[in-house]
Amino acid sequence: MTPLDAKRPLQLNAQGQLQHFLSLDGLPRELLTEILDTADSFLEVGGRAVKKVPLLRGKTICNVFFENSTRTRTTFELAAQRLSADVITLNVSTSSASKGETLLDTLRNLEAMAADMFVVRHQDSGAPFFIANEVTPRVAVINAGDGRHAHPTQAMLDMYTIRHYKGGFAGLRVAIVGDILHSRVARSQIHALNILGAEEVRLIGPRTLLPTDVEQLGVTVFTDMAQGLKDVDVVIMLRLQKERMDSALLPSEGEFFRLYGLNNEKLRHARPDAIVMHPGPINRGVEIASEVADGPRSVILNQVTFGIAVRMAVMSMTISGQESSQNPDQGGDHGR
Amino acid sequence: MTPLDAKRPLQLNAQGQLQHFLSLDGLPRELLTEILDTADSFLEVGGRAVKKVPLLRGKTICNVFFENSTRTRTTFELAAQRLSADVITLNVSTSSASKGETLLDTLRNLEAMAADMFVVRHQDSGAPFFIANEVTPRVAVINAGDGRHAHPTQAMLDMYTIRHYKGGFAGLRVAIVGDILHSRVARSQIHALNILGAEEVRLIGPRTLLPTDVEQLGVTVFTDMAQGLKDVDVVIMLRLQKERMDSALLPSEGEFFRLYGLNNEKLRHARPDAIVMHPGPINRGVEIASEVADGPRSVILNQVTFGIAVRMAVMSMTISGQESSQNPDQGGDHGR
Amino acid sequence: MTPLDAKRPLQLNAQGQLQHFLSLDGLPRELLTEILDTADSFLEVGGRAVKKVPLLRGKTICNVFFENSTRTRTTFELAAQRLSADVITLNVSTSSASKGETLLDTLRNLEAMAADMFVVRHQDSGAPFFIANEVTPRVAVINAGDGRHAHPTQAMLDMYTIRHYKGGFAGLRVAIVGDILHSRVARSQIHALNILGAEEVRLIGPRTLLPTDVEQLGVTVFTDMAQGLKDVDVVIMLRLQKERMDSALLPSEGEFFRLYGLNNEKLRHARPDAIVMHPGPINRGVEIASEVADGPRSVILNQVTFGIAVRMAVMSMTISGQESSQNPDQGGDHGR
Repeated sequence: MTPLDAKRPLQLNAQGQLQHFLSLDGLPRELLTEILDTADSFLEVGGRAVKKVPLLRGKTICNVFFENSTRTRTTFELAAQRLSADVITLNVSTSSASKGETLLDTLRNLEAMAADMFVVRHQDSGAPFFIANEVTPRVAVINAGDGRHAHPTQAMLDMYTIRHYKGGFAGLRVAIVGDILHSRVARSQIHALNILGAEEVRLIGPRTLLPTDVEQLGVTVFTDMAQGLKDVDVVIMLRLQKERMDSALLPSEGEFFRLYGLNNEKLRHARPDAIVMHPGPINRGVEIASEVADGPRSVILNQVTFGIAVRMAVMSMTISGQESSQNPDQGGDHGR
Repeated sequence: MTPLDAKRPLQLNAQGQLQHFLSLDGLPRELLTEILDTADSFLEVGGRAVKKVPLLRGKTICNVFFENSTRTRTTFELAAQRLSADVITLNVSTSSASKGETLLDTLRNLEAMAADMFVVRHQDSGAPFFIANEVTPRVAVINAGDGRHAHPTQAMLDMYTIRHYKGGFAGLRVAIVGDILHSRVARSQIHALNILGAEEVRLIGPRTLLPTDVEQLGVTVFTDMAQGLKDVDVVIMLRLQKERMDSALLPSEGEFFRLYGLNNEKLRHARPDAIVMHPGPINRGVEIASEVADGPRSVILNQVTFGIAVRMAVMSMTISGQESSQNPDQGGDHGR
Repeated sequence: MTPLDAKRPLQLNAQGQLQHFLSLDGLPRELLTEILDTADSFLEVGGRAVKKVPLLRGKTICNVFFENSTRTRTTFELAAQRLSADVITLNVSTSSASKGETLLDTLRNLEAMAADMFVVRHQDSGAPFFIANEVTPRVAVINAGDGRHAHPTQAMLDMYTIRHYKGGFAGLRVAIVGDILHSRVARSQIHALNILGAEEVRLIGPRTLLPTDVEQLGVTVFTDMAQGLKDVDVVIMLRLQKERMDSALLPSEGEFFRLYGLNNEKLRHARPDAIVMHPGPINRGVEIASEVADGPRSVILNQVTFGIAVRMAVMSMTISGQESSQNPDQGGDHGR
């Protein structure tokens, strides 16, 4: 694991408030709980006739996507709109990157336009850290997925979902199933579950799709679904990237489904009240059967709903953290 | 014609209010008139210094375009902005569709983000019906063009235009000219004109571009322009899709223009006060001569202006219909 | 030089107020100063907690980009958002242009949707003039760069930057360096500097990249950097378009940098308090060394900040000019 102190000062301001959101690794449990509690207060906004609060009115949020993702971009756009912020979306692959401008020059320019936040998606692990290190004070950076490294807002919406259905994390057994090796989502989930005090985190997958440093992650490893799912409270299925199928890492799609695809039969090994989660988009018949995805224990679409509230929470908290870094006397009362 | 009752319950709520807008087929004349009247009240918004009403503030409108159309997308975006709604545009062909996600999964996800409306454009006939059937109650679906089937907001803005210039539909003779076979616009216009009580709907075009079920549509068919245009009050020219030209269905562009292209000479057969309409974008010199398109009887650009008002009407009415479906006691007072 | 009177009536209304912003050529000094003063009043908006003024609320701004430019598009979007306008962006190359619609038909349609402003970027010199000539009264046209002709908002933000750091233009020596021949930015800067009364405008570059009509522009020409930069107050570096490199007009990138690239050594010829400017995006190691771009005399990122304020000024002034053209009695009080 990377040393905590290398990351803590970057993400937190002097008062210990969130000012960037890059990785869950090294964050204190209280802060993760604060994110979940703040998301609670935003959840009802999505149910209102007027789905809007004026919290970030007149703020400029830049979605800077070096890697395309309509779904993630959409959730951040919606979260920003519901906080009344102005949003600019830059798909950088088709932009000045092709004119030979460096990553940093692109961001310095957006800074100079008085951007308040960069929501960054990048194919390279660590890019949002690099940006947060370089960015001018006052600009919050949110990691919307970097390489194989982290996807912390996804992991926090997963934690929100678990807390919502299970009441908390103490005593919980959680299984994460599939292509762990290539999954930034899994990495962030493991950190989050350990920080929040889940009893046991299990990884289930074929040897070829498990990370080699797996014993350092504070998890139990299974290659057999029946054993791995036994008595778990939560099953988190990962998306199998189709492009892995073509590589030597995996047998056929059919073979993967037979061994690791979640159907009702395999789900029987979990606790009767276990919930089934998936970060989406799902591959029906590859990692999950429709009978499970659409079944009574699936909370996959609820995750999406919670995701907007969690992103609203992280956006308002980091902006608030930046503001109280600038004006330490006034405090950052993001929940006003 | 498809049975009315198959479609009426889907588009209308229990109080008979519009809750989706998918097709004009089977809708009562009163409802079409209500749309036109509501559009009347929105028309002046476009002339104000502040072109905005707060009617849909805090609503989330998703433009979900499976088929690209800058023009139609723009009109819906503008209509939504002028109703103060938040708009998210998804060009699905370049999005998760390519990741193998099903249409339904995409929409379920948007639903879960608390979308209030899907404006759907799709290359397959019937897709918006399929979506409206599956969508969660509370989400309105508007058909922005599906395959060869329907384009009801276009047809309603055409009806608005006709009513605006002709005062009503009684006694009117309307000619629709060109590639009827492939035109969803023509199909929706025919329904609308019949429902609203036009005296006679004429279709004019080469045999190869006329639908085979034409006698069931309640229309008169002509293959000669001079005969077909004789004494009509309204001439609606259709856009000739360039790609049809390459097929065996048509002679050359020049030949088509000679036979069916509207110029001043052919227009002389219509009534002296006849108006000329076109859904745009026009092909100058293919289906319409510039002397007509830019001439005194052309109302083509007025159609565009009316189109914003009609879309505002349909958007506010369907949202209102959804709300009164949810709270039947309160009624849906969309015109507030 | 083109005759002033050919352009003045188009850009200015009967009261002499700006109603379009197409070129600086022929505009009076007072008007340029008014733009700079108006931008002054908008500069602090970017520093506010709520970066928004309600000046253009309910106005519809159409960014119509026939040539792609993420950076310029973004600055206009941000400026419009901070003026509370609604923005629609059309990338016309991928739109109806490919359906064979003429430029004019596209714009007539946007007009009919009650657009208040077209921000136009076009690869052809003169396109925004053509549009402003044809557009309906009430719609303001802003040139966001046309061919090799003009980029007046860029030039005005450059003037803002110079005035900000140098207090004014009297007595100033300004050098513009690089590919003058292909640069619409340089052309607009030369007009602006002459109108605002700079003492001397110098062009520095290889013979092959200098315009042939250079003596008519009211400038001094140098092919040697040491001589050209001697005692200047302002150095404006131009972006070298990579595609020029492949042509016969230029030696290698390395050779260009050796002769005309700005490094600290060459900068020593300028005055000790000289500022260095660049319209961006910069090519590090091609026309400018990182030691200069990131050095203490670079104001390149400040230009970007000022650019938002200048664009807000031009947008609000032209809308105001259009309004007082429509209602000559009421006057256009854009600074309210």
